[in-house]
Amino acid sequence: MATEATAENTTYEEFLGKVKRISNVQNAAGILGWDQEVVMPEGGTPARSQQRSALSAISHELLTDDEMGELLDELESEDLDDEQAAVVREVRREYERATRVPGELVEEISRTTSEALPKWKKAREEDDFSIFAPTLEKLVELEREYADHIDPDKDPYEVLFEEYEPYLGIDTAEETLAELRDELVPLIEDVRESDVELATPFEGTYDAETQEELSRDVLDTLGYDWDRGRLDTAPHPFSSGTQFDARVTTRFDESDPLGALMSTVHEFGHATYTQGLPDDQYGTPLGQARDLTVHESQSRVWENNVGRSRAFWENFLPLVQERFADANGVPVDEMYQAANRVYEDNLIRVEADELTYHMHIVVRFEIEKALIRGEIEVDEVPELWNDKYEEYLGVRPDTDADGCLQDIHWSHGSFGYFPTYSLGSVLAAQLYAKADEDIDDLDGQIRAGEFDDFHDWLTENIHEYGCLYTTDDLIEHATGESFTAEYFLDYVTEKYGALYDLE
Amino acid sequence: MATEATAENTTYEEFLGKVKRISNVQNAAGILGWDQEVVMPEGGTPARSQQRSALSAISHELLTDDEMGELLDELESEDLDDEQAAVVREVRREYERATRVPGELVEEISRTTSEALPKWKKAREEDDFSIFAPTLEKLVELEREYADHIDPDKDPYEVLFEEYEPYLGIDTAEETLAELRDELVPLIEDVRESDVELATPFEGTYDAETQEELSRDVLDTLGYDWDRGRLDTAPHPFSSGTQFDARVTTRFDESDPLGALMSTVHEFGHATYTQGLPDDQYGTPLGQARDLTVHESQSRVWENNVGRSRAFWENFLPLVQERFADANGVPVDEMYQAANRVYEDNLIRVEADELTYHMHIVVRFEIEKALIRGEIEVDEVPELWNDKYEEYLGVRPDTDADGCLQDIHWSHGSFGYFPTYSLGSVLAAQLYAKADEDIDDLDGQIRAGEFDDFHDWLTENIHEYGCLYTTDDLIEHATGESFTAEYFLDYVTEKYGALYDLE
Repeated sequence: MATEATAENTTYEEFLGKVKRISNVQNAAGILGWDQEVVMPEGGTPARSQQRSALSAISHELLTDDEMGELLDELESEDLDDEQAAVVREVRREYERATRVPGELVEEISRTTSEALPKWKKAREEDDFSIFAPTLEKLVELEREYADHIDPDKDPYEVLFEEYEPYLGIDTAEETLAELRDELVPLIEDVRESDVELATPFEGTYDAETQEELSRDVLDTLGYDWDRGRLDTAPHPFSSGTQFDARVTTRFDESDPLGALMSTVHEFGHATYTQGLPDDQYGTPLGQARDLTVHESQSRVWENNVGRSRAFWENFLPLVQERFADANGVPVDEMYQAANRVYEDNLIRVEADELTYHMHIVVRFEIEKALIRGEIEVDEVPELWNDKYEEYLGVRPDTDADGCLQDIHWSHGSFGYFPTYSLGSVLAAQLYAKADEDIDDLDGQIRAGEFDDFHDWLTENIHEYGCLYTTDDLIEHATGESFTAEYFLDYVTEKYGALYDLE
Repeated sequence: MATEATAENTTYEEFLGKVKRISNVQNAAGILGWDQEVVMPEGGTPARSQQRSALSAISHELLTDDEMGELLDELESEDLDDEQAAVVREVRREYERATRVPGELVEEISRTTSEALPKWKKAREEDDFSIFAPTLEKLVELEREYADHIDPDKDPYEVLFEEYEPYLGIDTAEETLAELRDELVPLIEDVRESDVELATPFEGTYDAETQEELSRDVLDTLGYDWDRGRLDTAPHPFSSGTQFDARVTTRFDESDPLGALMSTVHEFGHATYTQGLPDDQYGTPLGQARDLTVHESQSRVWENNVGRSRAFWENFLPLVQERFADANGVPVDEMYQAANRVYEDNLIRVEADELTYHMHIVVRFEIEKALIRGEIEVDEVPELWNDKYEEYLGVRPDTDADGCLQDIHWSHGSFGYFPTYSLGSVLAAQLYAKADEDIDDLDGQIRAGEFDDFHDWLTENIHEYGCLYTTDDLIEHATGESFTAEYFLDYVTEKYGALYDLE
């Protein structure tokens, strides 16, 4: 028996060595990505593209080589402990998806998305959907083909969705987004009809430098680990890295200091998840974050459930007042209102409030699902888009630039990604409700600027597991329940009911 | 014949694809290195080390795989054009060095240098050579073993030297450094005995922020291509990157604004070489810089032959005066003297002037050569070091911290690297002399702040060839002569003779 155990260990160690190498290559590629977005001079693009494709090809080859397949087969027939089994499960998933799709198709998709990006930009600039339409059609076709290689017997949209959220199931996504639509459409309608006008105390100009100091203040306040991170600016804010080095980016709009601040808090949530992954599992799935739903829940719980709470502003408003004279005399109530105001005529997802946000997601979800399932044609998209905005949000875009061309994702070939934004917000509310139950006076702690208990709760219930559990099991483990939209709906109904004086 | 040509092309294309992949992996590793020195938070080290070793192992495996050997064999038996032959020649060299050394030895050296670094630091801090001595002994032994694997019939120091300068030959290095010693020792002696005291106009405090603006001014003045580069600070200034993205770092000492400025100009020289490599050869040796002698000649020619010239300061002094009120009223002559002052009691290489600098190199060169050749023991180093300083520079270190422990290089396992510093300066003077002959009134152009002709001369004679020529051929091609110390010796004799009023 001892001999057998040794043999197993050797196989597992060999396997783990390969897994870590892949992950190191991917993390190196992540640094190249960060560099490109944040510090790379413009002229660097041609070399950077080649460097990134080389690393991506290498990581693909390492993942799909025959030996990896043999090691997986061998390990799956052996007695593994829970941690080992989880690592094998996650790598098997990646392996299957990577080996089933022919290299030529991956290359064709990559080529087509490279061409799609400038086409999408031009279409948006010139407000002319027909410039982007043929490429979008091609991309839809290629993505359907891609899905067909991975699983010809499955709904292709489901296959694509599972790329971003492998364990919650498309049914959960469909039910949840339908529930959000059905519940939020009347709530948004009520808000529109309410006579209440929330305060907008920031109407001046706020210089970027001071805003950056304020972003640093908020990261300090929330407990960002600067020894393992940094703050920079990027045109499209993101966070990236590993548990040893999880960086945050933000951007500053001189007319909207609150926007930058909330964006910083959002990225803090992502980064603090990454920082909380176990050090000793670096390079294995146990040291990597669960998929997009969980990741987004971490950004949203800090951005919305904490950062847009009255308690948070009681603590943080004085720091804003220190930085911007303008904010002196603004009462907490107004600050709280400003952070939660529903912009009723807003057409743009990235500028949306916590409530209408989900309707932007629902529209794209319904349309991309129908596209990939072959239920509608590309040229029907603009009209359908506008109709849905009218139906769900009570506003109709005048232009496609402000309509179906507003987001970059489709030009990246990303279909199935969007719903995780909403699922993440929903999960955030569920996690917050449980933390609130477990932690003594969480609201009071936030009011006092104390975030340690909440931080620890997230670490102990989510972060430190990496990918040990599947998404559904992780949620069950953390909250004692399955994934549910109940808490989110209660939260927004109560919050916006009070803010807008609805009965 | 047509079929054969196609076959050749296919083989060459396949080979080139492999070469480019290796180079992309190495360039990616270069970005990781830049990031680590410049922006990485301290906590990032454990992950970064693993990422860098993964890339380094992958690039080693790609270089040494059997297929690469077969492709090289096949290509060497075919009719190649000059460019193809140069690429094959350079890759063959790398391949031979990489395949001859067993992986275990590479790993042992890497492990030992990791241990050596903290030992060296501690030894220097505590001024106790005995802390570093055992590790240094081990490193010397491992490096001898390393050299023996590469070529058992060759002087081991020669093998190590060729790692950094493969084509000039150890004889040239030995002769040149002996010539520098023999000629410069009496010249330094004369300077020491001269009654002339050069001006030191900068005795105040100069804030880092303004110094950085001045560094940007000097990069603007010299024609740095910002679209393909950037300036940052790093504890040990360096430049790195590719023709598409060649970055400069510097550091600021508030008591020494000239030091930072000259360091920026030095790194500019390296970066502008990199920026001048041909775009369409990116990823092949024809798009990569020649070895250390040539690289150092590019930094030194800008730092010394341009940046420490009277003409340069006639143009640039007003910009210093704009930035620092202190410099108002400082005449060009004093500025020129300040940039060229010989610090007679200086024991530290990195703080040395253009003249005494080479004695620091000669000392280490003579000692490391004897160590690797087994002619002296490690415990003789401190005494020998101090004796040589007394003999060549007229100063004797009081401590080993200021003596043989001052530089980090040996703890990296770098033996044979140092002489390229001097060879580079020597080559800089040779190139400058030829450019001065070819360009109409170069001195006048520098005085007018016009650097285009000089820049073009360097591009057309050095940069754009990448590794097409070997170092010796490149020099011959650029200057019509073999490598020679004649121009450097004339240059320093004339310059310091005039500055110090020597007959």
